[in-house]
Amino acid sequence: MMKRWNPLVRFAALMPLMFLWTISVWAADALPSWNEGKAKQAIVEFVKRVTTKGGKDFVLPAERIAVFDNDGTLWAEQPMYFQLAFALDRVKALAPQRPEWKDKEPFASLLKGDLKAALAGGERALLEIVMATHAGMTTEEFEKIVRDWLATAKHPKAGRRYNEMTYQPMVELLRYLRANGFKTFIVSGGGADFMRVFSEKVYGIPPEQVIGSTGKLKFELRDGKPVLVKLPEIDFIDDKAGKPVGIQKHIGRRPTFAFGNSDGDLQMLQWTAAGGGARFMGIVHHTDADREWAYDRKSHIGQLDKALDEANAKGWTVVNMKNDWKVIFAFEKK
Amino acid sequence: MMKRWNPLVRFAALMPLMFLWTISVWAADALPSWNEGKAKQAIVEFVKRVTTKGGKDFVLPAERIAVFDNDGTLWAEQPMYFQLAFALDRVKALAPQRPEWKDKEPFASLLKGDLKAALAGGERALLEIVMATHAGMTTEEFEKIVRDWLATAKHPKAGRRYNEMTYQPMVELLRYLRANGFKTFIVSGGGADFMRVFSEKVYGIPPEQVIGSTGKLKFELRDGKPVLVKLPEIDFIDDKAGKPVGIQKHIGRRPTFAFGNSDGDLQMLQWTAAGGGARFMGIVHHTDADREWAYDRKSHIGQLDKALDEANAKGWTVVNMKNDWKVIFAFEKK
Repeated sequence: MMKRWNPLVRFAALMPLMFLWTISVWAADALPSWNEGKAKQAIVEFVKRVTTKGGKDFVLPAERIAVFDNDGTLWAEQPMYFQLAFALDRVKALAPQRPEWKDKEPFASLLKGDLKAALAGGERALLEIVMATHAGMTTEEFEKIVRDWLATAKHPKAGRRYNEMTYQPMVELLRYLRANGFKTFIVSGGGADFMRVFSEKVYGIPPEQVIGSTGKLKFELRDGKPVLVKLPEIDFIDDKAGKPVGIQKHIGRRPTFAFGNSDGDLQMLQWTAAGGGARFMGIVHHTDADREWAYDRKSHIGQLDKALDEANAKGWTVVNMKNDWKVIFAFEKK
Repeated sequence: MMKRWNPLVRFAALMPLMFLWTISVWAADALPSWNEGKAKQAIVEFVKRVTTKGGKDFVLPAERIAVFDNDGTLWAEQPMYFQLAFALDRVKALAPQRPEWKDKEPFASLLKGDLKAALAGGERALLEIVMATHAGMTTEEFEKIVRDWLATAKHPKAGRRYNEMTYQPMVELLRYLRANGFKTFIVSGGGADFMRVFSEKVYGIPPEQVIGSTGKLKFELRDGKPVLVKLPEIDFIDDKAGKPVGIQKHIGRRPTFAFGNSDGDLQMLQWTAAGGGARFMGIVHHTDADREWAYDRKSHIGQLDKALDEANAKGWTVVNMKNDWKVIFAFEKK
C-alpha cells in the first residue's frame, strides 16, 4: 500500500542524497587547475584509498599528516629565494644606520648592486646577510617588518607581490587534502618566523603547522614586559637530512603524504616512503620556461637530480608543471 | 487555522531545540570533577567571554591556543618525575649489558638502590642517566620501550600505572576547551618523545601538539632504510625561559590560555599574560596531602614560590586542589 508523504517529509528524506551529490560534485572539481593525467589521477586515487573506511589502506584521520616543502613546491623560488630578496631589501633599508657596511663585505657589494660579488663569500656571506637582517629584534618587530615588506615588494620578473607567486594547483591540493581529513604542514628550509607571517592567509596553514629553519631566541623582560629577542645564532636548519629531524621534533609521527621539488626534499620523501601502509610521495618538476621557469639537475636554486632519479626508480609521482598544470599562478586566470 | 502535522515532521521541528538543550546541559556538566568555586567560575566565565561572538573579548578560533605544563599540572610528579622513574627502571634493565656500570657513578649507586647518592652528582648525574637511557637507539625503538614500560610499571605509592595518575579535572578541562574551539598543547620540561607515546590516548593531545625537551637526532640510512637515531646530546630544554621559546618555535603565536604548577612555568604564564585582549593564567597548587601531595615553596620537585607570588599579585587563577577538585584521579571514582 502506498503511503502519502507530507511534502516536508519527502524533502527531508531527500537530504542525505543531496548531501552525497554535493560531495561527489565537489570531489570532481576539487583540483580544477590540474589537467587530467597521471599526476592528478595518482593524487585522487591515493586520497580515495586512504579515506575509504574498511579498505585495506584506510588511514585514521589523526594519522593523515601531509608535509610540503615551500620554495619551489608551494610558491616560486626564482630568480632567487624570496626570503633572500627580503634580506637584500632589508640590507638597503638598514644601510643608513649601518655606515660601516660601505666597507664591509658582503654588504659593500650588495649596496653597490653587485649580488654576485656579495654572494662570492658562499655560505658565510649568506649567513651574515641573514643574521644582520633577521636578528637583533623581537619576534613581534620581525613579524611587522615581514608583513610590511610583503605588502609592498614586487617580484622582479612577474611584477606581482611575492605572496601572489603561489602555485594555484598546490593551493587547491592543500585544500583538497584538508577536506579529506589531512592536517597540512610546511616543512621548509626557509625561516619559520618568515613563513608564518603569510602561511595562514595564502595556504590556509596555521603558524603551528609551519616547520622551518630557526634562529636562537632569548626571553627577556623589558621594563617588566616579556619579549623574545631573535639572536644572531642558528638554532636549526630544516633542510636535507634536517627535514625528517624537523618532522620528528615538531610532529612526532611519520607523514602519510609528502611533496617537494628538489634534492633538499629527498630525505623527507625517503622518510615518508619508509612508513608502513599507503604513502604518497610527490615532486614538482619545473618544466615550464614560458609560464614559470624550467630547471632541474644543474640548477643552483632548487637542484633536482638525485631525488628525480629516486622518484623515477621508485614510482613516486613527478608533476610535470608544463603538462600537468592548467594554471600556475592564480593571477593568470581571466 | 491549526495545521495538522505528520508526527515525523513534528519530531524534525523539535530537533534544533533538543540540540540546544543537549548543548546547555553539557556545558553545565563539562567540569563535573570541579567543585563550584572561584577557580571553576573563572574558567567558565573566561571561556564564555572569548567565545561570545560580537563580545568585546571574542577570540577567533584560530587564536584559541591553550598551553599546559605536564608534570604536576596534568599528572602527578611525586615522589619523583615519572620520566625519571622510567630512566631508573631502564638503568636496571640495561645493567646486565653494561657491566662497567657496577663501578661507575651515578649508575653504581643507582644499582645498589641508593637514589640519593646517585643524584648527589647533581645535574651532570641526571644528564648521564637520561642520556644512557634515552639515546643510542632509533625513535621507533624508544617509542616501543616507553610503551612497554607504561603498560607494566606501577607508581610506588598509588600502585597504579603511571598513565592513570592523570588529574581527572584537568582532563575534563582539556576536553571542555577543545569543545569550545581551543587547540590544546602540552609545553613541558619533560621529553617530547616520551610524552608523545601517551599524550593522545590520555589527554586527547596529538603528538604534534606536544612541546617538550628534546635530544639531537641523526637521520641515517640503515641497509637502505631511513631511521632517526637519538643522540646523547641535548637539543632543547623546554623549561623556565625555555617555555616561551618553545612556544614560539612550535606554535608561532602567543597562547590565550596557560596552566602550570611551578616556577618552571612562570615565564610561560608571563608571556601569555602580556598578550593583548583576554588571557587566562592558571596554577595548580598542590594542597592535598591526603588524596595527592601538599608542596609548594620549599619543594625540590615542582617548586612553587615566585609564580605563586606573581599569581596572587596579578589575580591569576590559583587552583586549590584540596578544595577545588571533587575528584583528583579517575580511579577514585566509584
